[in-house]
Amino acid sequence: MKHNRDNTATIADTISTYADKAGAPPETLIYTGDFCQTVNVHAFGYGPDRWMEMEINDPDDLEDIAGYPVTWINIDGVCDVEIVKSICNTYNIHPMVQEDILHTGQRPKIEEFEDYVFCVLKMISYDPDEIQVSTEQISLILFKDTVISFQEKPGNTFDLIRNRLRSGKSKICNFGSDYLLYSLLDAIVDNYFLTLEEIGDQVDDMEEEMLNDPDGRTEQVYLLKRELLVLRRSIWPVREMINRLDKTESHLINDSLGIYLRDIYDHVVHAIDSVENLRDMMSGIIDSRLSSASYRMGEVMKVLTVISTIFIPLTFITGVYGMNFSFMPERDWKYGYIAAWVVMIGIAGAMLVFFRKRKWF
Amino acid sequence: MKHNRDNTATIADTISTYADKAGAPPETLIYTGDFCQTVNVHAFGYGPDRWMEMEINDPDDLEDIAGYPVTWINIDGVCDVEIVKSICNTYNIHPMVQEDILHTGQRPKIEEFEDYVFCVLKMISYDPDEIQVSTEQISLILFKDTVISFQEKPGNTFDLIRNRLRSGKSKICNFGSDYLLYSLLDAIVDNYFLTLEEIGDQVDDMEEEMLNDPDGRTEQVYLLKRELLVLRRSIWPVREMINRLDKTESHLINDSLGIYLRDIYDHVVHAIDSVENLRDMMSGIIDSRLSSASYRMGEVMKVLTVISTIFIPLTFITGVYGMNFSFMPERDWKYGYIAAWVVMIGIAGAMLVFFRKRKWF
Amino acid sequence: MKHNRDNTATIADTISTYADKAGAPPETLIYTGDFCQTVNVHAFGYGPDRWMEMEINDPDDLEDIAGYPVTWINIDGVCDVEIVKSICNTYNIHPMVQEDILHTGQRPKIEEFEDYVFCVLKMISYDPDEIQVSTEQISLILFKDTVISFQEKPGNTFDLIRNRLRSGKSKICNFGSDYLLYSLLDAIVDNYFLTLEEIGDQVDDMEEEMLNDPDGRTEQVYLLKRELLVLRRSIWPVREMINRLDKTESHLINDSLGIYLRDIYDHVVHAIDSVENLRDMMSGIIDSRLSSASYRMGEVMKVLTVISTIFIPLTFITGVYGMNFSFMPERDWKYGYIAAWVVMIGIAGAMLVFFRKRKWF
Amino acid sequence: MKHNRDNTATIADTISTYADKAGAPPETLIYTGDFCQTVNVHAFGYGPDRWMEMEINDPDDLEDIAGYPVTWINIDGVCDVEIVKSICNTYNIHPMVQEDILHTGQRPKIEEFEDYVFCVLKMISYDPDEIQVSTEQISLILFKDTVISFQEKPGNTFDLIRNRLRSGKSKICNFGSDYLLYSLLDAIVDNYFLTLEEIGDQVDDMEEEMLNDPDGRTEQVYLLKRELLVLRRSIWPVREMINRLDKTESHLINDSLGIYLRDIYDHVVHAIDSVENLRDMMSGIIDSRLSSASYRMGEVMKVLTVISTIFIPLTFITGVYGMNFSFMPERDWKYGYIAAWVVMIGIAGAMLVFFRKRKWF
Amino acid sequence: MKHNRDNTATIADTISTYADKAGAPPETLIYTGDFCQTVNVHAFGYGPDRWMEMEINDPDDLEDIAGYPVTWINIDGVCDVEIVKSICNTYNIHPMVQEDILHTGQRPKIEEFEDYVFCVLKMISYDPDEIQVSTEQISLILFKDTVISFQEKPGNTFDLIRNRLRSGKSKICNFGSDYLLYSLLDAIVDNYFLTLEEIGDQVDDMEEEMLNDPDGRTEQVYLLKRELLVLRRSIWPVREMINRLDKTESHLINDSLGIYLRDIYDHVVHAIDSVENLRDMMSGIIDSRLSSASYRMGEVMKVLTVISTIFIPLTFITGVYGMNFSFMPERDWKYGYIAAWVVMIGIAGAMLVFFRKRKWF
Repeated sequence: MKHNRDNTATIADTISTYADKAGAPPETLIYTGDFCQTVNVHAFGYGPDRWMEMEINDPDDLEDIAGYPVTWINIDGVCDVEIVKSICNTYNIHPMVQEDILHTGQRPKIEEFEDYVFCVLKMISYDPDEIQVSTEQISLILFKDTVISFQEKPGNTFDLIRNRLRSGKSKICNFGSDYLLYSLLDAIVDNYFLTLEEIGDQVDDMEEEMLNDPDGRTEQVYLLKRELLVLRRSIWPVREMINRLDKTESHLINDSLGIYLRDIYDHVVHAIDSVENLRDMMSGIIDSRLSSASYRMGEVMKVLTVISTIFIPLTFITGVYGMNFSFMPERDWKYGYIAAWVVMIGIAGAMLVFFRKRKWF
Repeated sequence: MKHNRDNTATIADTISTYADKAGAPPETLIYTGDFCQTVNVHAFGYGPDRWMEMEINDPDDLEDIAGYPVTWINIDGVCDVEIVKSICNTYNIHPMVQEDILHTGQRPKIEEFEDYVFCVLKMISYDPDEIQVSTEQISLILFKDTVISFQEKPGNTFDLIRNRLRSGKSKICNFGSDYLLYSLLDAIVDNYFLTLEEIGDQVDDMEEEMLNDPDGRTEQVYLLKRELLVLRRSIWPVREMINRLDKTESHLINDSLGIYLRDIYDHVVHAIDSVENLRDMMSGIIDSRLSSASYRMGEVMKVLTVISTIFIPLTFITGVYGMNFSFMPERDWKYGYIAAWVVMIGIAGAMLVFFRKRKWF
Repeated sequence: MKHNRDNTATIADTISTYADKAGAPPETLIYTGDFCQTVNVHAFGYGPDRWMEMEINDPDDLEDIAGYPVTWINIDGVCDVEIVKSICNTYNIHPMVQEDILHTGQRPKIEEFEDYVFCVLKMISYDPDEIQVSTEQISLILFKDTVISFQEKPGNTFDLIRNRLRSGKSKICNFGSDYLLYSLLDAIVDNYFLTLEEIGDQVDDMEEEMLNDPDGRTEQVYLLKRELLVLRRSIWPVREMINRLDKTESHLINDSLGIYLRDIYDHVVHAIDSVENLRDMMSGIIDSRLSSASYRMGEVMKVLTVISTIFIPLTFITGVYGMNFSFMPERDWKYGYIAAWVVMIGIAGAMLVFFRKRKWF
Repeated sequence: MKHNRDNTATIADTISTYADKAGAPPETLIYTGDFCQTVNVHAFGYGPDRWMEMEINDPDDLEDIAGYPVTWINIDGVCDVEIVKSICNTYNIHPMVQEDILHTGQRPKIEEFEDYVFCVLKMISYDPDEIQVSTEQISLILFKDTVISFQEKPGNTFDLIRNRLRSGKSKICNFGSDYLLYSLLDAIVDNYFLTLEEIGDQVDDMEEEMLNDPDGRTEQVYLLKRELLVLRRSIWPVREMINRLDKTESHLINDSLGIYLRDIYDHVVHAIDSVENLRDMMSGIIDSRLSSASYRMGEVMKVLTVISTIFIPLTFITGVYGMNFSFMPERDWKYGYIAAWVVMIGIAGAMLVFFRKRKWF
Repeated sequence: MKHNRDNTATIADTISTYADKAGAPPETLIYTGDFCQTVNVHAFGYGPDRWMEMEINDPDDLEDIAGYPVTWINIDGVCDVEIVKSICNTYNIHPMVQEDILHTGQRPKIEEFEDYVFCVLKMISYDPDEIQVSTEQISLILFKDTVISFQEKPGNTFDLIRNRLRSGKSKICNFGSDYLLYSLLDAIVDNYFLTLEEIGDQVDDMEEEMLNDPDGRTEQVYLLKRELLVLRRSIWPVREMINRLDKTESHLINDSLGIYLRDIYDHVVHAIDSVENLRDMMSGIIDSRLSSASYRMGEVMKVLTVISTIFIPLTFITGVYGMNFSFMPERDWKYGYIAAWVVMIGIAGAMLVFFRKRKWF
């Protein structure tokens, strides 16, 4: 049953990313994810009145993009340790942060430094057929006039923001790098709701199925409930992260960003609420199924018991008069047969009255 | 089973309101609710000694109502984005607040600004036949001398306050806009108890039904228990909201309002308590049913077992003497038949003693 | 089943007291309780060396009692709104407090004002036959030299304090009004333990019954467990109330009262502990019953299975030789009958060995 | 079933100690315990270089022991209210504290005064045969140069400390009264682990028994689980008590005692942890038993079903050819009998294949 | 069943380490572990440019290693109380700390002193065959230029750090003793993930087994779930410990270590998360098994009921015509036999329709 192994992997795999590194000295740069591709580095410079973008093949080219109010460098794929390292060193990023970028089992967190702020969190996607949540690690580093983003897998979530920048008319163009950071975080958090919607639809289907076929199996419900654990673990710490970003005293984040960060905060709280509600709904489905199964079982038992207890005594009576003893006076009575029927119908009737009184049918 | 789909919708729909907006830039004004009607804007100006009211068709008319100590502008229906936008812009309301007003899946919260305070919370109603809680979003904005309220659906909850104002004798007339805000919040929170009362009555009915027919089905209990999740999610954050309103340092809210706000706070805490108690009562019903079902099942099993185990050996004996072997000495004894009866009655009696000792009947 | 409706009423009724007031303006004075009687106003003036008491028919008479270091005014019954109102107005009590006194579904709380402190809490009694907890609202108002107490129903809990005052030798006589407030609170909290003792005795009985008759029904346990919800809700907030009274900076409460208030606090914590322990014990009874029922069911099933599986094959064999085929060689063998018995005893023996090995009996 | 009543008594009795006092004025000195003996007062004076001990028959003799750096007065038995009162009055102990010493249902707590610190906590013992935890109240009062300890029952826990003092070489001799207080608390907390060890051994036995006989009864597990409630209630508040003792600003406790108090704190936390773990283990035993019972029941049902469903159709066939209709063509065929056997064996075989496919055996 | 006793021992044994010491005066140095070996003392001196290591046989030799920027003294085995004592006295370590080092049932904690910081925590290993977690106590003492580590059992976890030091190129060489402490803590925490990975793999296997054979026994799941209790208790307090180390104001720990300590903190939080997730997964397995068992039981019951209720009435009919009454008119009808078959097939058909309608097969 292959699909289950893959499924389970999400929790066990995250543990493995830590176990793999046990024994290695801290600051060892190892990529712990499974996914590997060519690393793409893409730079975007913009200001209120102009913008430019380019593919970066050599970290030295990064200097070409200088001169714009805000620069956004996006790295797709982190499996090539050397490239990540050389970009990070260009920006004087602490080796522990580099390690965190490469270590894909990272718990969402925020770390503030003198010159930059480092955030790491998860992009989430869901495969309804496999009942499997998969996560991708996103690392964001905010400088005074630059944002660097690392994506584990190539994805189009940030394309929406790129398109807005290209249009030149987006609000993002008029603000600094902190607003870009906010926009990226907002895109990631909004994405959670797409995943939650898919899961919500499946929970709806399970609930409807439950009402139509109360005796169906419940493995799927258990599997999905477990995946919600993965989801909760990925979203829960984001709440604290956004809160700290709002409360920060770092000079990198403008006070006027507060209302936007609180808006994300509300969204994250809502996402956590939704996960809890979905879990409660699934517990409800499971409990309802168990209760329903117990009810149906009771019904089955009653039918068996009514039929059995009516006929077992009657069959005994027929057995008695099927015996071949040479001396059995009743057998030779003219009305013996009819009397037997009368007795048997009487017993059956008495039984029925008894069961009716006990409300068994 | 259509009614269930609608039912489930409350949780899934709220997620959808977020999912629908994923990808859109922040501050995008989209109405995410299902309900649409003509937007009615109604203005009410009052002071200790006079009042006037008018329907507003054009936001520019809002200036006509100036000159009263307190102005209350109520907007019924928020599905026409343009109208909401033009009213908000007249009052210089932040675009993020405008987005929150239109986004009907909002979690109850409070947001303080220099010139105004923004509250959003839920009006709740309950349909006992469908076992469905439905919510309507209410947004309230408090200015120094104005309160603006947005209702998603037209409703008569605020009519009571309008009538009190029209009477000219209400305490509200003598106080500022903060007292009007309090009155509106109080009306909404009081309304929760009407909903809770309907649910409480239904829980009572379910409990009585349980005592009369302990083997009935429990789907309804599960459905109602799930709806209480929706309710709790809508009421819980209101507690924190009122608390922050009481603790606020905003100049818009007079200190003397404290005792009134603490009164609402107590009501909200009581409503939350009641939701928790109703949930506990429903868990009690479910557990009691399961326990009762198990007890009844045990009774059924005992009857089956007593009847079966008494007659099965007897039927075996009749079977033995129904065999047609040519040599069967007992068969030809004169008292064989009577002896068979004696043995069978003896076995039945022994069984009954055995069962009686085990307290099976 | 009338007694159940009454029973359930405690939670639903409290909700109703709120629902009844929905729509009414705040500060509306409505008595929301069910109990109505003639209101008795009783005044008690005392000091270290003298005391006097009198029935008050007209609130104006209250002035007659002036001149004593401490005055205690006790109002039995709050259903006559006018009397309550006139007394409260004599003492300049805030309309919201007046509303709280009359609103009998109030959650226990404390409210501090410039000139007085207002406490509201519950007196509890228990009817073991109906398995029903009922509560009565007590409101206490502390002034510098006066305590006003409102009781919903006439009761003798405070008689003990009256008697101590009349004796003239009680410690209460030597202290101020704050010590009287403490004495009243102490009397109410002590009373909780009488109720808890009655419930504790019933839980003991249920536990003993469970051990003697493990298959009995459990409705009563569920009903009592639910009533403990009511109890917990009534006692839990008293803890916070006493704590705030201890921590208060109000000039009305002397610092030396601290040790007495902490003593009540310990009692309340102990009462809450006891409620939780009783709930845990009842859960234990329910779980133990379910487990016991499952054990007994297993025993029943084994007996049925052993008897059935032994005799069903034997009965089949007797059936075979009861067939009337004209050609059945075994039937005519001389030892056919004996051989049949041998085979049947052999099968029965094999079955018994099989069951014994599986430890079924 | 007497032993159960006694058992239950621990929770109900503690409630009763409060209920008995309801109505009595505060500071009423009543001994609420069950245990009564002659009160023994024993005084111990010591310093770094000398010690003396004596039995005290008259509280006035207490002055004889003066002149030692530290005096320890131990009272065994508190049922003689007068003696307790006269000792307490000698030391100017507050009447509320005297009440707490005599009220044996006290929750562990600490109370600081100007001149002394009052601690009350529980000594615990366990009777594995009765599955019953019993507690004894210990009150400790710390003065600048004196410690007074009250024990409800005579016990030898403190003998170890007495012996250490008598040896004259113990560290206790070199320190002040606060170190003696610590030593007494340490002795009591160490004692908890003796009780926990006895319970732990019994839980081990229960677990082993469960693995050997998965269908045994579970009453004992429920009873022991309930006793752990008593234990938890007695130990839990000690944690807060030691913490407050460590954080105290009282001049009676030397700062250098901190490390010793934190050591006790760790022990208490460990004891609480152990209680929680034992509870979790017992829940595990219960759940495992229920699961095991359900598994065994399933096995029993399968055997019954396999045997029944194989033989019931066969018995029907024998019944058909046991009928006595005059016209039954098959009956007279030569190979009818053999054909019947073939059909019956065929049906039995088909059934077996069906069950094997469903993995029923 | 010996392996279970050993298994259980982890909780009971820890209690015993405390129980064994009950009655002994504090600061009594007793080794409470089971494991005993020759004590090995190994010293390591290093700086940015040189290092040396030596075995220490006599504590006096410790002075030889002086003169290096950082000295690391590692003691393998703590069962020889005298050696531990003499080393500790050389460094003026408080007797209570010495007691903690020897007392192997210690809860992870940190204790700060003027000259040194004392940490105690657990190394964890897991034996999948016995389903048993075992722990080893590690004590670490940080001085300005020295770290002393005590291991209960010899182990190679610290070898990795020794090898890095020997290489002379590790970052550790360039930093002070606080970085060495961090490195040792990091090695221990990394080790947790190796244990968690082993358990995670076993949980995966259990989950797969559950899907393949839903009716298997669940003892192993319960045993493993219990071991996770041990694990949680060992890891949980480490979180607080690292947090306090990060927040410390001790001059022994450099501020620049903060980012490294927060990294360990994240790892510990992740380990705790993983333990919780594994526990949730195992609860899921158990619930799923119970639900599955109930489903299968229902299926078995239906088969039994369908077969029984179809054939029991038919067998009754054959019984009727197997009776030997002399007067039975139907028996002599020519088509009696065929009529009987028609009736019987009709009954069977009606039953099948009934069961099909109820969706029993």
